[in-house]
Amino acid sequence: MSTPTPTPDRTVTIAFDVMGSDYGPAEVVAGAAQLSIEAPWIHALLVGDADQINDALAETRHNGERISVHHAAQFVAMTDKPAEALHRMPDASILTAARLVAQGEADGLVSAGNTGAGILAAARNFKLLPGIRRAALAAVYPTRATHGPKQDPFALILDVGATVEATADDLVAFAVMGAAYAKIISRNPEPQVALLSNGTEPQKGPPRVVEAHSRLRMMKGIKFIGNVEGVDIPKGTADVIVCDGFVGNVCLKMLEGVAETVVELAQYAYKESLRWRAGLAMLSSGIEKLKSVTDWNQYGGAPVLGFDHVFIKAHGRSRARAIANAGKVAAKAVSSDLSRAILQGLPT
Amino acid sequence: MSTPTPTPDRTVTIAFDVMGSDYGPAEVVAGAAQLSIEAPWIHALLVGDADQINDALAETRHNGERISVHHAAQFVAMTDKPAEALHRMPDASILTAARLVAQGEADGLVSAGNTGAGILAAARNFKLLPGIRRAALAAVYPTRATHGPKQDPFALILDVGATVEATADDLVAFAVMGAAYAKIISRNPEPQVALLSNGTEPQKGPPRVVEAHSRLRMMKGIKFIGNVEGVDIPKGTADVIVCDGFVGNVCLKMLEGVAETVVELAQYAYKESLRWRAGLAMLSSGIEKLKSVTDWNQYGGAPVLGFDHVFIKAHGRSRARAIANAGKVAAKAVSSDLSRAILQGLPT
Repeated sequence: MSTPTPTPDRTVTIAFDVMGSDYGPAEVVAGAAQLSIEAPWIHALLVGDADQINDALAETRHNGERISVHHAAQFVAMTDKPAEALHRMPDASILTAARLVAQGEADGLVSAGNTGAGILAAARNFKLLPGIRRAALAAVYPTRATHGPKQDPFALILDVGATVEATADDLVAFAVMGAAYAKIISRNPEPQVALLSNGTEPQKGPPRVVEAHSRLRMMKGIKFIGNVEGVDIPKGTADVIVCDGFVGNVCLKMLEGVAETVVELAQYAYKESLRWRAGLAMLSSGIEKLKSVTDWNQYGGAPVLGFDHVFIKAHGRSRARAIANAGKVAAKAVSSDLSRAILQGLPT
Repeated sequence: MSTPTPTPDRTVTIAFDVMGSDYGPAEVVAGAAQLSIEAPWIHALLVGDADQINDALAETRHNGERISVHHAAQFVAMTDKPAEALHRMPDASILTAARLVAQGEADGLVSAGNTGAGILAAARNFKLLPGIRRAALAAVYPTRATHGPKQDPFALILDVGATVEATADDLVAFAVMGAAYAKIISRNPEPQVALLSNGTEPQKGPPRVVEAHSRLRMMKGIKFIGNVEGVDIPKGTADVIVCDGFVGNVCLKMLEGVAETVVELAQYAYKESLRWRAGLAMLSSGIEKLKSVTDWNQYGGAPVLGFDHVFIKAHGRSRARAIANAGKVAAKAVSSDLSRAILQGLPT
């Protein structure tokens, strides 16, 4: 980042669902502990098993004035079926954390647990913003092109799976929400927004995409650059790519599969021959770059957009650093009033 | 290939649309010329500008007994809009070639020209097989896993854009067509067929996918392995992946974009530093392998499935070798009676 993050005027409280991530509660607590030292404008409300949280805190350097704990006796595991698990565990940490945000005890929510349970917990405790019919899960992923004045190497794609289908209205709302998020979080004053389709011409795609295209073209306050194709996802032709949750989920997981392929081939090459091995050792920084450009897992949180409260879904494999970043992103979205920016962008 | 291709009992005539590919008529003629020497069971009917074809033949070694020429005065360019171009040019080479096949002058069709025009020309001259409501364009692409007894490193994905939307019936028909093609062309006696969705559970995905899942699960004669996700496309978890044309088109083009990214990064690394350059020179075979696994453009023809005649759409950037391969694949599909195999697989 070229400019330092401005410190918000007031303290923002972020509720962290501490349970159910791949590396366990101590990793999430460690992230909040880092925040308590480096981000004095954030108060962390840790929700989960109080004993485990306190044990982890005792072993991690932190500022106790900026951390509080709220006990939740149960939690949803990664392998649980979301609806069934929330029904069975009314005191699950993700439900408790969402409830605390809805009741005003915290300003935003961060979770690295089960994605489906997180979205469902938000849907049960938060309200959709007026004019929004469906929430969207947006993913930040790395691209070849850079974006905005900060030369950000990441783009945003949404929806990647909050809901499987989308109408033209939903796609328009996703475009507005994605643009508002890119403006605030990536500090990109005029993000280029595109619709994902099977051709660049306005008439290409299923009816919902064609209809959304014609509406977005007429809208002021959004820089709509038209349709982009699959090839433009890794290229990064647009700052914000809009699609329904089914297509977005398939695309995002395909990026993950390609990253695995690249890493596996590099390992294969490493084992294969001494000649390759020598080459690989010399090329290690190149391979690292290649890996980082295709491995979306490395990058922070995915915002769940459309609710009246901020919710950042961190990846299940988040380390402490990623958790701390997700907390900062959540605080920035709260203090910049993301919800108001979305409402202002919606067609009237 | 471990076993030699069996020579069909009778000569198969394949009509080649010679015009409109990226490397010009001479490249397609060169492919047919190779065929005339190495595949005595194939007769090539070259359709396009007779002067250009004869000039190209005069400069290429070929067996004149296995090549004939049919003049077509016009052709569709890559940049033409398909419907408009076919309307304006009733004697376009692709229309003429499809007509010759429909009239029995040839047994199958190969084109490396404009894909949309090819599918439209087929739709106007061929009939859909009974029980098929929409044709599908299937793409052969390289995967990490190998497939079938031949250890084929390619899988099939369809539809990749013949039609944008698909019903549950269409998805079931695509599964049957893809399985029949894999059986015949890849000699995979029991290809594993999967539906592309946003989760592996049977209830995941939009209604059309959920419905197709429940029908495919009940069908005999097809090895349905359930839903796969985006991550499984490059992995190659299934031999045949079924989706609607919108999703398939986005995925295929995304693979292309990822291939470009990998190649560009390799070039960047090459320019970047002497140290990298030395490493890259040693690693060149590794990079080539990496490139070949992600660059679907290198691989042969994409079958257009569902019509009563065989049609192999070769890539616009096909070289002579790829054209010859597309001719062989078309002849194999004809002599193995692909249409009958599809009809036998359809639900009754």
